[in-house]
Amino acid sequence: MTPDETVTAFITAIERMDVDAAAELLATTVVYENVPMQAVTGREVVRESLTNFLSTMTHVEWPVSVQVATGNHVANERVDRFKFEAGWLEVRVAGFFEIDDDGLIAVWRDYFDLAEFTNQMAALQS
Amino acid sequence: MTPDETVTAFITAIERMDVDAAAELLATTVVYENVPMQAVTGREVVRESLTNFLSTMTHVEWPVSVQVATGNHVANERVDRFKFEAGWLEVRVAGFFEIDDDGLIAVWRDYFDLAEFTNQMAALQS
Repeated sequence: MTPDETVTAFITAIERMDVDAAAELLATTVVYENVPMQAVTGREVVRESLTNFLSTMTHVEWPVSVQVATGNHVANERVDRFKFEAGWLEVRVAGFFEIDDDGLIAVWRDYFDLAEFTNQMAALQS
Repeated sequence: MTPDETVTAFITAIERMDVDAAAELLATTVVYENVPMQAVTGREVVRESLTNFLSTMTHVEWPVSVQVATGNHVANERVDRFKFEAGWLEVRVAGFFEIDDDGLIAVWRDYFDLAEFTNQMAALQS
């Protein structure tokens, strides 16, 4: 797979909520950073983090509007949509990915406005 | 200039605080969106917005760590640093640009955590 295809496969695995398939595309030393929050390092830690996060919801859609790639770098603009029992929440996200020589995701950084997420989450929980 | 070079020229014009040089790289119908805030449409409106914003500071540095381009789309990861009288403020930003057939920037969207900016601004003003 090209770096572009690897990122697309990763996003679609997340949409299927198939954490194992997503984790197979991560390097063992992957760095995953939700930029407003914190960085998480290591495939198993990311797997656990994704499993815990996705367990709180019933559906995930991450439609990508633009995806660009140069060499081993890929960037995309997405709207990350999550369905909880109380309803949908969506956040506009810019993702940057770095693919290593084995074709695995070594770096994944998502840029977004944290309040856009937390305000909607608070509204769903009220 | 390639789309990649156009974006680089735009960023460096901002760093020189040369709004006229930056505005020359914008399409007349440009859409500029600070994603957590609002979209601004039209070169003259963006020129005025940039002029007002930059007038509050003395130095600007927008170092780009990664820039990727496919066709007429360009994306970059930056740390946007602004120096005010009270000190520096910096925000991690993901920028997406779309270049039109005339080689001008038709769309410019910056993704960042708004609180990362406002919290530092409040600290500088206290």
